[in-house]
Amino acid sequence: MNPYELLNRKRRGAPLETREIEDFVNGFTRGEIPDYQMSAMLMAIAINGMTAEEMATLTQTMLRSGDQWHMRDQYDFIADKHSTGGVGDKVSLVLSPWVAACGVKIGMLSGRGLGHTGGTLDKLEAIPGFDARLSRAAFERSIELSGCVISTSTEGIAPADRKIYALRDVTGTVESLPLITASIMSKKLAMGASALILDVKTGSGAFMRHYQDSKALAQSLIAAAAGSGTVVEALITDMDRPLGVAAGNANEIIETIDVLKGRGPEDVLEVTRAQAERLLVMSRRYDEASARTALDEALTSGRALEQTRKWIAAQGGNPDVVDDYSLLAQPSQVIEVKAPRSGYITAMDTYQAGMFTVELGAGRKKADDQIDYAAGVMFDRRTGDEVRAGELVARIQLGNAGRDSSGLAERFLSFVTFGDAPPASRPLVHERLT
Amino acid sequence: MNPYELLNRKRRGAPLETREIEDFVNGFTRGEIPDYQMSAMLMAIAINGMTAEEMATLTQTMLRSGDQWHMRDQYDFIADKHSTGGVGDKVSLVLSPWVAACGVKIGMLSGRGLGHTGGTLDKLEAIPGFDARLSRAAFERSIELSGCVISTSTEGIAPADRKIYALRDVTGTVESLPLITASIMSKKLAMGASALILDVKTGSGAFMRHYQDSKALAQSLIAAAAGSGTVVEALITDMDRPLGVAAGNANEIIETIDVLKGRGPEDVLEVTRAQAERLLVMSRRYDEASARTALDEALTSGRALEQTRKWIAAQGGNPDVVDDYSLLAQPSQVIEVKAPRSGYITAMDTYQAGMFTVELGAGRKKADDQIDYAAGVMFDRRTGDEVRAGELVARIQLGNAGRDSSGLAERFLSFVTFGDAPPASRPLVHERLT
Repeated sequence: MNPYELLNRKRRGAPLETREIEDFVNGFTRGEIPDYQMSAMLMAIAINGMTAEEMATLTQTMLRSGDQWHMRDQYDFIADKHSTGGVGDKVSLVLSPWVAACGVKIGMLSGRGLGHTGGTLDKLEAIPGFDARLSRAAFERSIELSGCVISTSTEGIAPADRKIYALRDVTGTVESLPLITASIMSKKLAMGASALILDVKTGSGAFMRHYQDSKALAQSLIAAAAGSGTVVEALITDMDRPLGVAAGNANEIIETIDVLKGRGPEDVLEVTRAQAERLLVMSRRYDEASARTALDEALTSGRALEQTRKWIAAQGGNPDVVDDYSLLAQPSQVIEVKAPRSGYITAMDTYQAGMFTVELGAGRKKADDQIDYAAGVMFDRRTGDEVRAGELVARIQLGNAGRDSSGLAERFLSFVTFGDAPPASRPLVHERLT
Repeated sequence: MNPYELLNRKRRGAPLETREIEDFVNGFTRGEIPDYQMSAMLMAIAINGMTAEEMATLTQTMLRSGDQWHMRDQYDFIADKHSTGGVGDKVSLVLSPWVAACGVKIGMLSGRGLGHTGGTLDKLEAIPGFDARLSRAAFERSIELSGCVISTSTEGIAPADRKIYALRDVTGTVESLPLITASIMSKKLAMGASALILDVKTGSGAFMRHYQDSKALAQSLIAAAAGSGTVVEALITDMDRPLGVAAGNANEIIETIDVLKGRGPEDVLEVTRAQAERLLVMSRRYDEASARTALDEALTSGRALEQTRKWIAAQGGNPDVVDDYSLLAQPSQVIEVKAPRSGYITAMDTYQAGMFTVELGAGRKKADDQIDYAAGVMFDRRTGDEVRAGELVARIQLGNAGRDSSGLAERFLSFVTFGDAPPASRPLVHERLT
């Protein structure tokens, strides 16, 4: 393989052969292909795109650069789930014990939050004692004890992705559908699930705001898994408004448990149920009707909640949080936001809502920022709700005492739009792709 | 300036501001912007192109990265000439003393041959004692003594181009009109001529084979000089067959002197005259008619030849070569190529003809190859000529004794096409662009 011959071809828009992509990526991972050749290749890919076949090869090559856990060889069936990220997105937290309570094992190698979206691992770490950095052995033990597990990727998984991502970050090649796809899927396929459900968000708080872009990403993620042995489906779900009423970390754990107690917000329940149902059907132990029945029964019987206690304990956390929310970090101060006028909340820029929680300390602007677990926002009124002037709209929860609270309510209102009529309603689950 | 912000913009195809291009290129030249960011930028430029304005800025920035000689401030008028390169292209050698004999000073900072095209400096160095590596002072002295000079670029000229070219060479970004343009013109404008004539070749032996590509290059080179203070014109001339009958180094010096003696091939004379005439007119000392008369008179009077002797002497060469070709390196062996059939030579792949002379040792495959001055080819019959079976078509001149000559005549004939009717004739000068 001649690296600049491949660069010439990709510059002209011609596709690369399977073997060529493998040699180029493996050469880079081993340090034989220098950064300046890889960055030129990344730019050529970002501009000229990749065929579905090239993308699947790139994904598989990055996947094979590191450890593969082949979990589906170990269990009859093990499910996995990935979200492209959103504000108030606690679906993984509700989903895991709920699916496990229906007898379907589920495991996830997950990421931390960066930018406007929260991170599942950060939320779990709001639970006292919860260990989200598991070895492979501890990962398996949690599945044995509780039927579910969520942990951070280990160093051994997809080193090619880590090295490529570091270069993309400084060469203007982050925004590229094939590169985004290969990065997500090379890590996601490393666990080797039997089935994977992708929750691809769309709307003002999503990674892809526009529906067509979200759909293209979903299709791309599915295509990249071709031949991997993991069956993949995607649901495109709404992120034009925060999911649920809580955005933060400790407050999202409370909301998660509320949902599992059968008293959480309907939107969280509906979006989670849609994904849980697909995983149950993909396990082939259920058809659609029996999956629905089993999920309902797991909630009403309290088994999903019991599974939650087992899971938290299995990962070293204090399961008493399920019954005593005071064990979680508490806000030092709560600022009430009142409606400036009567009418309807017609829109909320959900990206800005996410960045607002980040600024409160609930998320990260830089990878090494510390999370303030108590910080966050409670959306007491949401898009579509009718409000009266002066009525409570939201509560801003400050974590670390002493933070300057002036102007925060006004900042919050700056990304909320009020009007005289309710906005058109949007479905929570837009489309399913296979 | 944020380098990856510029990379993001260029990836999306948006143009960059003047200041941004300056900061990026200067930052790279100073070593502040790493190779991997520049290679990503070069790939984005190679794929998405540049506006005429961006290209002029890139050229000017690369030009200003090094020494600028501002020669037009020193002389009333000084001409310059550049060829995109061809096989048998000795135009600069004939042109310089001829124009100087008409009282118009001319100087060139020129390059060496690489690949299928010969290099003007290599040809000149076939003259015993000729020094083509002049300091600026020696460059000016040659102009004072003989009205003309051709020398290699100094280290101080366009260091940004050298650094960028080294990266393009290994990142598949050589084939890019804006990058080619900026590379050529940043070096060419460094001398600071009053006027520059560009000889842009087209056809099977040219850098750009297709007419539209040649024309686009010519227009691009002219556009890149906008605002530089050098008036630029281009002639698109034919390189679908070798120029003249000699391709090599010593043999091209002989042909050059023959042309200046009034007994050289018509095609060399016509292509050189077209460029000489434009330079004389651009000097404003001549109109078209008086330029033609002056050029004729310079040849017939022997003044152009006398100027050639002065020039060779001014650059340290032995001027006696003008009268005694035996002072040049002589072939160790000559292989005659005979016509395999009667008919017409209908075509010659001139790129392959050029590569054939390179393989004989007359040119370079790699930058550090040594030139064999005596090696080359004499095209005794050329495209369009009628031949009889067994008649002499070409002489292959071997330089270093002991070279294996078997199969060379057959190799030569493999890129020559014979037919029953003469091919359509092509003009030597296709078009003038300003």
